[in-house]
Amino acid sequence: MSKTFDKLQPYLDKAMALQAARSLFEWDDETAAPHEAANYTSKVIGILSNEYISSLINDDVRKILKKLQDEKEQKELSIKEKAIIKELNRIYDQLESIPPEEYRAYNELASKSCRIWAKAKKDNKYDDFAPILKEIIDYKKKFAGYRAKGGKKPYEALLSDFDECFGIKELDIFFDKVKKEIIPLLKEIGSKADTIDKSYNFLLYDIEKQKQFCKYLSGYLGFDFNRGVIAESAHPFTTQLHNHDVRITNRFLEDNLESAMFSAIHETGHAIYEMNIDDSLTQTLVGGGTSMCMHESQSRFYENNIGRSKEFWEPIFGKLVSTYPEQLKNITLDHFIQGINKAEPSLVRTEADELSYPIHILIRYEIEKMIFNDEISIDQLPDVWNKKYEEYMGLTPPDYASGILQDTHWSVGEFGYFPSYAIGSAIAAQIYYHMLDVMPLKDYLKEGNLTPIREYLRDTVHKYGATKNTNEILKDMTGEEFNADYYVKYLKEKYEALYQL
Amino acid sequence: MSKTFDKLQPYLDKAMALQAARSLFEWDDETAAPHEAANYTSKVIGILSNEYISSLINDDVRKILKKLQDEKEQKELSIKEKAIIKELNRIYDQLESIPPEEYRAYNELASKSCRIWAKAKKDNKYDDFAPILKEIIDYKKKFAGYRAKGGKKPYEALLSDFDECFGIKELDIFFDKVKKEIIPLLKEIGSKADTIDKSYNFLLYDIEKQKQFCKYLSGYLGFDFNRGVIAESAHPFTTQLHNHDVRITNRFLEDNLESAMFSAIHETGHAIYEMNIDDSLTQTLVGGGTSMCMHESQSRFYENNIGRSKEFWEPIFGKLVSTYPEQLKNITLDHFIQGINKAEPSLVRTEADELSYPIHILIRYEIEKMIFNDEISIDQLPDVWNKKYEEYMGLTPPDYASGILQDTHWSVGEFGYFPSYAIGSAIAAQIYYHMLDVMPLKDYLKEGNLTPIREYLRDTVHKYGATKNTNEILKDMTGEEFNADYYVKYLKEKYEALYQL
Repeated sequence: MSKTFDKLQPYLDKAMALQAARSLFEWDDETAAPHEAANYTSKVIGILSNEYISSLINDDVRKILKKLQDEKEQKELSIKEKAIIKELNRIYDQLESIPPEEYRAYNELASKSCRIWAKAKKDNKYDDFAPILKEIIDYKKKFAGYRAKGGKKPYEALLSDFDECFGIKELDIFFDKVKKEIIPLLKEIGSKADTIDKSYNFLLYDIEKQKQFCKYLSGYLGFDFNRGVIAESAHPFTTQLHNHDVRITNRFLEDNLESAMFSAIHETGHAIYEMNIDDSLTQTLVGGGTSMCMHESQSRFYENNIGRSKEFWEPIFGKLVSTYPEQLKNITLDHFIQGINKAEPSLVRTEADELSYPIHILIRYEIEKMIFNDEISIDQLPDVWNKKYEEYMGLTPPDYASGILQDTHWSVGEFGYFPSYAIGSAIAAQIYYHMLDVMPLKDYLKEGNLTPIREYLRDTVHKYGATKNTNEILKDMTGEEFNADYYVKYLKEKYEALYQL
Repeated sequence: MSKTFDKLQPYLDKAMALQAARSLFEWDDETAAPHEAANYTSKVIGILSNEYISSLINDDVRKILKKLQDEKEQKELSIKEKAIIKELNRIYDQLESIPPEEYRAYNELASKSCRIWAKAKKDNKYDDFAPILKEIIDYKKKFAGYRAKGGKKPYEALLSDFDECFGIKELDIFFDKVKKEIIPLLKEIGSKADTIDKSYNFLLYDIEKQKQFCKYLSGYLGFDFNRGVIAESAHPFTTQLHNHDVRITNRFLEDNLESAMFSAIHETGHAIYEMNIDDSLTQTLVGGGTSMCMHESQSRFYENNIGRSKEFWEPIFGKLVSTYPEQLKNITLDHFIQGINKAEPSLVRTEADELSYPIHILIRYEIEKMIFNDEISIDQLPDVWNKKYEEYMGLTPPDYASGILQDTHWSVGEFGYFPSYAIGSAIAAQIYYHMLDVMPLKDYLKEGNLTPIREYLRDTVHKYGATKNTNEILKDMTGEEFNADYYVKYLKEKYEALYQL
C-alpha cells in the first residue's frame, strides 16, 4: 500500500461515483425513463461526463501520477494500485491530448449524429447521413492524430482504446485467417443451408412464457439475482455500476423462439463476468472486465460454445418443450440443435449466425482501415460496403438500411470497436478447448451442473477484473497467448459435422 | 436578463445534474436496484451530495451572489432569476454555517441511524434506538443553533427549511384550532364509527386488476405518461428529475381495495403539480413545487377533497364494480362513499383517515417543540408520546413499533417536516372552497371532466414552480393568505353529515 497512491483516492472515488451515475442514466434511459426525458437526460449525461473527466484529468492528479513514476514509489504499490495507475495513464493518453473545447464539440456532434443516423436509416437515405459522418470521422482522425506518436498509425490509437493486446498487426493476422478459412466454409455450406429445417422457430410463442424461460436460463447459468436485475429494452445489453449491481436487458419477439433465449444466455455471460470480479476491486477503475474482447469472449462462450451444444440442452430441453407443448411437439432435441446452429450468408450483422458473424466484422475492419489510411472517401463507402458483401457473402444489400447504415457504431464515433466482437468469439473457442482439457465439461453440461464451469472461469478470468490484460489472462489460464487457430478449428469441426461436408 | 447572473449558470447546471443523479439513484434504489447494491449506492449518493453542495457553495458563487446584492444589479434580474437567487441564498443560509466536516459526519450518522431505527422498530426496542437518536438531535440542535441568529429559536430554523411561510407562530395558531375543533369532533364520532360497514374493503382483490385500475385512475386525473412513469416500491412516493420526468410508485395489498387506489390518487396529485410547472423553469433551482405544504395540498386535494367525494366516483364507480363484480356486487355507491370516508381514532399515522390525521401531526409537533426547547429528554419520549395519544385519541400504543418508533423521519433528522402534512390538508380545503366558488367543480366531477380542474390548478399554482411562495400563491389565487378556518369548516361539514351528528 502506497501513501502517495492514497492521495489519489478522493479523485478516484469521485470519478467512480460520476461514472456510476452516468451508467445509471444510460440504463434508465433504455429501460424506465419516460419518453420526453431523453433530451434533458443527454444534457445531464454531458455534464456528468465532463465532471468525470475533470475529476481525473487535473493538475493535482497529474502531480501525484508524476510522483508515482519514481522507482522507490513504484516499489510501494500493490498489484491493484499498479493496475489502477496503468488504467489512469491510459485515460490520460486517450483524453489529455484533446483540447477540452474540441472534445465537448465532438460529443455534442456525436449525440446529434446518432439521431441523424437513426432517421437516415429509417428513410433509407445515405446522403442525409454522409455529411455528419464525415465530420465525425474528421474529428476521430484529428484526435487519433494527437495520440499517434512516433509514426504510429491513427487507427492503432483507436484500437488501443478497446484492447491493448490487439493492434493492426495482430488483427491483420487474425482476419487473414478468417478470410482464408471461414469464407470458403460458408460458401461451401451456402446451397446446403436449407437442408436444415428451422420453421418451428417462427411459430407464435407466448411472450410471458418466454420471459419466464429466459429468467430460468439466466438463473440456471448462475446469474445472481441478489446482485443483478433483468429488464426489457429495444436491444439487449448489459451494464454494471459495479460487481454488486449488474443489469441485463432483453427484448421479446412473439414469432421468434430463439432470439430472446440466446440474448438471455449472451447477456448472462457478460453479467457473470462482472458479478464474479473480486470484491477488492469494487468501485475502482479496474473493477470491470479487462477488455471488450474478453467480455465478448465470456458472453459468446456461454451463448455459442456451451449454449448451442447438445449437451447443454439435454437436461433442459424437456422444460422448453413443456413450456410450448403445441409448438414443439414434433421437434426432437437433435432437430432443435440443428436449428439453433443453422448457418447461411446474411446481410445484417446482429442477426448473423455463429459462422457468418466474423465475416461481417472482417468487412467493417477492412473498411475502417481504409478510412483511417485515407484510402476511401465518405461517398465511396456504400459502394465498397456492397462490393465486399458480394465478394465475401455472395449477397448484395438491397438498400442502405440493411447495408452501410445498419450499425449505429460509426454514427457515435465508435471506430476500432467492431474487431472485439470477432476476437471475442475466437478467445471463447480457445478457452473452450482449454476447458475440455482440464475438466469434464460436457459431462457437467449433461448433468445440468454449471457451477464448476462458472467457478473455473471466475478463478482464471473473472476475479482479476482489469488487473490483468487479455493476453496475461489467456497465458496464465491456457499456457499460451491469443491463438486464432482454435477458432478456425472450432468452426470447421462444428460446421463440417453439422452439414456433413 | 442579467449578465452577472449568467456567470452563475455553469454552477447551477452542474448542481442540477448532480441533483438529478441523486434523485435517480434514490428512485432506482426503491424500484429497481438489486438487493446488494444498497450499501455501495449510499457511498455514491454521499459523494454526489457533497459535489452538489460544493458546486453551489464556493467562493466563485459567493462572489457573484455578493455582486448581485447591488441595487443596480438587482434591477437587471428577471423574476425567475430573482427566485433562483432567493433559493440559492436559502441554501447558503441552510448549509454555509455548518462546518463541512460536521456535515459529513452527520450524514454518515443519519444513514447509520436509519438502519438502527428500522431494526429497533422490528425488534420493538426503543432503547436500541435512543442513543443514536440523541446524537442526531444533538447535531440538529447544533446546526440549528448556527443559524438561529438574533434570538430566533432553533426549531424556527428547522421549520424554515420546509416553508418560509410557516414558523412557530403560524403553526401554534393552526394546531390550536386543530386541538380545539378536531379532537372533540373525533371523540364525538368515536363510538359511532362502527355504524359504517367497511368489511367489503378487506376481501381479496386481484393485484393485477388493482394495478390496471390504479393506472386508469392516474390517467383519468391527468397523469401524462409521456413525461412520467409508475413503478412499485415498498411505500408509495413521488420523485422528479424535472417537469418532463416525474415518477410515482405504488404498492398493492391483496386484502385491501382502498390502499393502492388512494395512494395512486395521492401520488398522481404530486405528479400533476410537477408535470405542470412551466418549461421556462425546467432543470433550475426553482423548477419544483414551491414547498412541502403546497405539494401536500395538491396530493391531498386530489386524494381527499375530490377523490373521496361522491361526485368523483359517480362516473367511474361502475368501472370499479365491473373490475371486481363478485366482491362489490352488493355495494352501492353510497355505501362505498361512506366506507372510504369512515373515521376513527387510530395509532398509526400512515393508516389514519382524513379526520384523525391532523391529530397525529399535532402530537409530533408538540413533541418536536419540547425537544428543541430542551424541555424533554430522550428517555422521556415514549412516555410523553403515549400520554398524548391517550389524551387526544383515547388510545394507548401497545408497543414501541406502533408508538414512538412508527415513523422513520426523526431517525434521518427530519424535524420540522411533519407539520407540512397537516398544513397541506388545510391548504387543500382552502383551495377546495375557492374552487367551488369559481367553477362548477362538482358538475365537472360528475361529468368525468377533470381537465378544467387540472388547468385551473396549473394556471394558479403549478406553473409557477418555486418562483412564488405558499402565501403568495394562495393570496393571488383565493384573495387571502393561509387560513385554517376552511379546514375546520370542511372537516366539520363533512363528518357531521357522514355521522349525522
